Amino acid sequence: MKNIAYYNGRTGLIEEMMIPMNDRACYFGDGVYDATCVVNHVPMAFDDHIDRIYRSAKLIDIDIPMTKEDMKAMLMDLVRQVEGDVLFLYWQVTRGVGPRGHAYKNAGPTPSIWAFVRPNSMRDPFGAYRCITMEDTRFFHCNIKTINLLPAVIANQRAEEAGCDETIFHRGERVTECSHSNVHIIKDGALITAPCDNLILPGITRAHILKICAKLGIPVQERPFTVAEMMAADEVFFSSSSALTCRIREIDGKPVGMKDEKTFGAIRDAYQQELKAECGVK
Amino acid sequence: MKNIAYYNGRTGLIEEMMIPMNDRACYFGDGVYDATCVVNHVPMAFDDHIDRIYRSAKLIDIDIPMTKEDMKAMLMDLVRQVEGDVLFLYWQVTRGVGPRGHAYKNAGPTPSIWAFVRPNSMRDPFGAYRCITMEDTRFFHCNIKTINLLPAVIANQRAEEAGCDETIFHRGERVTECSHSNVHIIKDGALITAPCDNLILPGITRAHILKICAKLGIPVQERPFTVAEMMAADEVFFSSSSALTCRIREIDGKPVGMKDEKTFGAIRDAYQQELKAECGVK
Repeated sequence: MKNIAYYNGRTGLIEEMMIPMNDRACYFGDGVYDATCVVNHVPMAFDDHIDRIYRSAKLIDIDIPMTKEDMKAMLMDLVRQVEGDVLFLYWQVTRGVGPRGHAYKNAGPTPSIWAFVRPNSMRDPFGAYRCITMEDTRFFHCNIKTINLLPAVIANQRAEEAGCDETIFHRGERVTECSHSNVHIIKDGALITAPCDNLILPGITRAHILKICAKLGIPVQERPFTVAEMMAADEVFFSSSSALTCRIREIDGKPVGMKDEKTFGAIRDAYQQELKAECGVK
Repeated sequence: MKNIAYYNGRTGLIEEMMIPMNDRACYFGDGVYDATCVVNHVPMAFDDHIDRIYRSAKLIDIDIPMTKEDMKAMLMDLVRQVEGDVLFLYWQVTRGVGPRGHAYKNAGPTPSIWAFVRPNSMRDPFGAYRCITMEDTRFFHCNIKTINLLPAVIANQRAEEAGCDETIFHRGERVTECSHSNVHIIKDGALITAPCDNLILPGITRAHILKICAKLGIPVQERPFTVAEMMAADEVFFSSSSALTCRIREIDGKPVGMKDEKTFGAIRDAYQQELKAECGVK
């Protein structure tokens, strides 16, 4: 064959292979991969790559439902079917197929095994190449709503394992945002919320809350706040388009907030009314 | 219908919807998404969410092949087909379908439009919730080979746009790794390469190179090195399982390295021999 793809036991040409939309690769990039060059139908450093994908999987709580020997045999079977002296072997393991939801349950989906083999051209080892440099700002772009969501998946799962509802991220002392919502505090009658810089997603519900505060005469401070300020705040709540406004009563096992129902309740009720008005609910 | 999924014009039940394995969502998480709650068949803050997905797409160089009005009409058509007072509307745009490769060409794939609508249960706005906190270490886990690869995609594309072969990441002055390879320098006959901490992927070719140096009596320093050290090194090269060892002659338009062919050549040739021996090439 000119190339081959594999997905959970099915094989076919790469360009014709279909996979379920609900595989968590599609929404979260929730998986790990490895790849190597294949010369003369021998995958280079094969055991090293097999070991690494099992290690990568373990680091994100994926238990590969296949032994290393079986994985090697399966991949070799694919390699043998593709013609060419130099091939590229790629394989990945994702958390599996299930309805979209950040947290992965203990009785979760069975991990999916993917692979493909295709002809490759090797770079000339005697060449001399040209590069550029780039400041590594990976994941300082939280303002862009991409599907590179694996860290959010892990964080949300940790909350669920702790019997909690959300995980609040901080960078050093600064509170940024939650695994899939924004977080705000109320102190002395004022709303304090992180500014829309590159460390938070500009929440749409957050924007509506700011407008509500303006309308209700609740002072707003858009500024970074600390973990200590959050723990001592009169109220703490998270917001998102699906969670709306959620009051927080406990963080890391310690009671927080719940001291200014008047201000929080005014925001909550105004947002509920806005929702009902916009959606025509009686 | 109880739910509905959409992919580039096709519709069906979410749990039955199939998408091409070569959609770049599957390998790179190369896309952006948005979502909102739908009450009474009205998506909340619909225009805000539509505006944001176009903004997100623009920030990662995706040009959505559909007007905002058409996207709204398409999504409303899906919403109308699903029963329920409270629904969850999710949609994403990925860079499209094509053979796996980091850089996306100018004449690249057409972006794919995805969506689904399903019943949702709303959190109780009068509830009080529990959270945990977590230091935000997103993308300080470069040691795990996940498919959250969008930053690598963007970086590699920038190299290609500059007519170059790779992008070398640095964090402040410290050089870490490349968009999909490790980078090493040679100075005064010694190999200097970043240590295997959480800021680099433990490259398998890198590990083989270290063994080769030990065998050849080339001194090795596994330590962080700076951009300035790299620019002044005798040799600079990147390595990966598919690129093997690639000598670098230019970085950011400035000539680099190319001053110690003896040492670099010894490593390159030993790795080529290892490859040939392991793969049985005559």
